[in-house]
Amino acid sequence: MASTKDRIVDASAELFRRNGYTGTGVKQIVAMAGAPFGSLYHFFPGGKEQLGEEVIRWSGAMYGQLIGAIFDPAPDVVTAVHDFFAGAAETLRETDYADACPIATVALEVASTSEPLRQATADVFESWIAGGSERFEAAGIPPARARELTIAMLASLEGAFVLCRAMRTTVPLEVAGGTMVGVVRDELESTPS
Amino acid sequence: MASTKDRIVDASAELFRRNGYTGTGVKQIVAMAGAPFGSLYHFFPGGKEQLGEEVIRWSGAMYGQLIGAIFDPAPDVVTAVHDFFAGAAETLRETDYADACPIATVALEVASTSEPLRQATADVFESWIAGGSERFEAAGIPPARARELTIAMLASLEGAFVLCRAMRTTVPLEVAGGTMVGVVRDELESTPS
Repeated sequence: MASTKDRIVDASAELFRRNGYTGTGVKQIVAMAGAPFGSLYHFFPGGKEQLGEEVIRWSGAMYGQLIGAIFDPAPDVVTAVHDFFAGAAETLRETDYADACPIATVALEVASTSEPLRQATADVFESWIAGGSERFEAAGIPPARARELTIAMLASLEGAFVLCRAMRTTVPLEVAGGTMVGVVRDELESTPS
Repeated sequence: MASTKDRIVDASAELFRRNGYTGTGVKQIVAMAGAPFGSLYHFFPGGKEQLGEEVIRWSGAMYGQLIGAIFDPAPDVVTAVHDFFAGAAETLRETDYADACPIATVALEVASTSEPLRQATADVFESWIAGGSERFEAAGIPPARARELTIAMLASLEGAFVLCRAMRTTVPLEVAGGTMVGVVRDELESTPS
């Protein structure tokens, strides 16, 4: 069984994804984690903000592994980009439009209100950009352009999540995914091999 | 001078953009609006949720007008798409990365927690999609494809806002804008005129 600390981080990650950082209370967290109230402050003496930072970095690292898990076994990056958006759409449908990006809601909430949490979300996005860039570079795309393609892909994924959750349809993810597949395909065709 | 009700809606819109819906208290709203506490419940007997719905619909309509304001005077839709992202980047810089989309933070916060507010954000996105589609159709793009291009554009705009606010740089908006400019240009070139 997971340790109390792990259960607190895990419960917080799920609550932040669904209800945001501000909308999640510490009482809800300990209740979902099945942990005594005091244990939260035992493991996180800085309280909710310290816990928030750990959750952002931890779930950011977990989701970051999806980039390798999807791109590395794919026959090519065009297929990988397709699978990346298709997998996100499937998860959204399966969770009744609740589980999308673990970072985005918190990132928007804290961008102007908590510098440590904003920095944590920035570090996570930067690590995802590095992970994606590496895969596009491996496909022969020059580094600066590989970074741009990753930023464009992550931006359209994050924005599609916003539209999908609001409109309760996966169409925006399908459209954004189709658009990025076309962009990456064109890029490969114009890259000298 | 604006009416008390207008000042309440206006103050709420600004606070929701910066701190989200959950992170904004009714006391903060009346303080910023310079309104007596009781006036909020006088104008919005349903309290914060009723006010939230009005703010989403009102700021959604305001921002929706930007589509016409940018697309209609532009010489062509490719220039319009460029200007749309460039204007968003300029606003972000001018407001120290605080003022981005008036709907997105709230949309992510309420998607799984308040059905009336989720529906309001869905209606706003739908109206923006209709506004953009109309402009792409006027440029000769068939209706179904015009709708897809608008969804792709709004998704990359919304996601770029998330990345820009977190990373405190307008690079994601510039990259997403450049990508969409290329997609729309290619679309026009392949559309029989």
